Amino acid sequence: MELTKILRFSAAHALTSAALSPAENDGLYGPCARDHGHNYALEATVRGVVDGDGMVMDLAVLERAMQTVVDLVDHRHLGRDVPALAGVIATGENLAATFYRMIDRALPSGRLVRVAVVETENNRFEYEAAGEAR
Amino acid sequence: MELTKILRFSAAHALTSAALSPAENDGLYGPCARDHGHNYALEATVRGVVDGDGMVMDLAVLERAMQTVVDLVDHRHLGRDVPALAGVIATGENLAATFYRMIDRALPSGRLVRVAVVETENNRFEYEAAGEAR
Amino acid sequence: MELTKILRFSAAHALTSAALSPAENDGLYGPCARDHGHNYALEATVRGVVDGDGMVMDLAVLERAMQTVVDLVDHRHLGRDVPALAGVIATGENLAATFYRMIDRALPSGRLVRVAVVETENNRFEYEAAGEAR
Amino acid sequence: MELTKILRFSAAHALTSAALSPAENDGLYGPCARDHGHNYALEATVRGVVDGDGMVMDLAVLERAMQTVVDLVDHRHLGRDVPALAGVIATGENLAATFYRMIDRALPSGRLVRVAVVETENNRFEYEAAGEAR
Amino acid sequence: MELTKILRFSAAHALTSAALSPAENDGLYGPCARDHGHNYALEATVRGVVDGDGMVMDLAVLERAMQTVVDLVDHRHLGRDVPALAGVIATGENLAATFYRMIDRALPSGRLVRVAVVETENNRFEYEAAGEAR
Amino acid sequence: MELTKILRFSAAHALTSAALSPAENDGLYGPCARDHGHNYALEATVRGVVDGDGMVMDLAVLERAMQTVVDLVDHRHLGRDVPALAGVIATGENLAATFYRMIDRALPSGRLVRVAVVETENNRFEYEAAGEAR
Repeated sequence: MELTKILRFSAAHALTSAALSPAENDGLYGPCARDHGHNYALEATVRGVVDGDGMVMDLAVLERAMQTVVDLVDHRHLGRDVPALAGVIATGENLAATFYRMIDRALPSGRLVRVAVVETENNRFEYEAAGEAR
Repeated sequence: MELTKILRFSAAHALTSAALSPAENDGLYGPCARDHGHNYALEATVRGVVDGDGMVMDLAVLERAMQTVVDLVDHRHLGRDVPALAGVIATGENLAATFYRMIDRALPSGRLVRVAVVETENNRFEYEAAGEAR
Repeated sequence: MELTKILRFSAAHALTSAALSPAENDGLYGPCARDHGHNYALEATVRGVVDGDGMVMDLAVLERAMQTVVDLVDHRHLGRDVPALAGVIATGENLAATFYRMIDRALPSGRLVRVAVVETENNRFEYEAAGEAR
Repeated sequence: MELTKILRFSAAHALTSAALSPAENDGLYGPCARDHGHNYALEATVRGVVDGDGMVMDLAVLERAMQTVVDLVDHRHLGRDVPALAGVIATGENLAATFYRMIDRALPSGRLVRVAVVETENNRFEYEAAGEAR
Repeated sequence: MELTKILRFSAAHALTSAALSPAENDGLYGPCARDHGHNYALEATVRGVVDGDGMVMDLAVLERAMQTVVDLVDHRHLGRDVPALAGVIATGENLAATFYRMIDRALPSGRLVRVAVVETENNRFEYEAAGEAR
Repeated sequence: MELTKILRFSAAHALTSAALSPAENDGLYGPCARDHGHNYALEATVRGVVDGDGMVMDLAVLERAMQTVVDLVDHRHLGRDVPALAGVIATGENLAATFYRMIDRALPSGRLVRVAVVETENNRFEYEAAGEAR
């Protein structure tokens, strides 16, 4: 059984690599190299056996773990104002992987299986446990 | 190839375990221990090879199997008015597992692979074939 | 300029008139005479001139006024567990009118112009100031 | 007859008044005084009689007028990178009024009746012709 | 008080005027001159005083009036297979006006105030009673 | 890491098999044997390791591959006006499999893992790499 909780936050970002010149960043990331922002959705999925209370995991426990992430990034500029993202190019891929690690540390071991970051209704980024090995 | 059909229903529920006192239920389930309700989405996914008519399964067959579930729960209180859910704490997890078994029985064997129950835009519960063993 | 804020809550209700027998309620309200529930949206619209800070009204003020309503009804049975709705048949129409009066009292006079209650993606109820007179 | 076209853009903003100190801006605008962003929807409504081709206005004409606005603000910081918004505190109210004037100038006179800016699924700002007078 | 009911249907159409050559239709309607289709939403709004049963109008009455329209157009080609639309260029504007008249005839006099046809999440057409006079 | 891009198009179709008589097509496909249409969503998912620029794949590359499909089908009748679909019964299953092959050819080998076609908010068709073998 899988349980997915979804929270939302609004943040600004600009995709720029410190290893590149402004012109190179524009060439690589296009308009995304400029300051802009999104209403993000953060989705976290846990897996497990249903217990006698009918739950895989107390939804409040999962929400608290996710809320600690949201509190760091909501109404912030992801590239300039979030210490936990220092040095991280704020692509959806990097956000999903970083948020996965943060939520995973806050939950009982082995329960988190997937984190998705949805930037717009057209772009979705999804990180699965052991996903990099596949 | 996978085919997913989605139906919607509106129902009331309250999360309470008969093994617990009212205060214990409040402590465990929080506000969900009180009568409230949702516009639920029921999603059922079947898998198979596409036949010469271009179909994995006739959508009308899948819809009929799901509709028998919807007819039992739509505009009902899940904990008090649905005999098929007697003794079942109406968490999203238990609903997904129960609806999976009901739909699976109504379809040709081995076709149903997943049933999801969506309570709100923030909470999703998903049961996969052999899901409990994982 | 109009500003609309939208909050959501989940509640149970059953449409029954105390003046009618159970059979008459079934005849009049159909399946809605039975306990069921919804994920409701509550929309409140205020109107006014934009001030020098760029605002018609501080969104936090509007949200607080709406939140007092949501706190009364969220995760409740509207017909049995909400004193503010005692004696009110919990149709979308009656909810919209009642919530309008509650939000209007909590805001500076003459600012609220409209309250909508959305029961499902198919049913919307909207009460406007002086609406009954039209 | 009214015709409404909806376009979307992603932008960053921070609500700060040049007349206020940082602490005052924080007090007035809360978390919105910090850099953040949204997936905005821009809705423009024109009104008129339906012509013999079945149209109130060629949708392509309306879209072009709106697109000139979107081109200025999409993937930009509304407070720092958009000359057309210089000196404008980028609240939803001010954006709706400014975009109204820009779209109105680009359309035949007297056709535009309403512009809405939707910041999130919870906040909507709507400017009507002669709206300030009401 | 206003009550809005929303139904959905899927139909094909092509915008072509019998008074124009194929090249002229292409020039006027662009890609819409070719056969294509939509998942349409049909929204109908009635207005009135709330009665002692808490209703402006029985939702089932409104739904039946709308369903007669949906039954004519659902899973049809609007320009070729719907006698009620013979000679009507199937623009959103013409559909909204035609559906308004059909629904209005099926309801008690003076209750219907608005019909909207939504073609996509980007295009909305809305006809109001006496709308042509404004 | 998985990255999903979603594009939308509007098309007409009718489900009819050339091997069947009109009456047989009506019996098999029901109302879908008649000309109708949808606002389709096309979702394509690629998988891979995140590179030093924070990307699994340049979103613009994925979008271009998908856009070539959309350009062929948008504002067309899928059964009559799209050479790439000649002889293909335009069920969601067949569209998903066909679009998968078209997008897969346009991308670096081995990156595309899944294509979904969404016909309505109630029907979703999903083709996975090696999906037929499962």
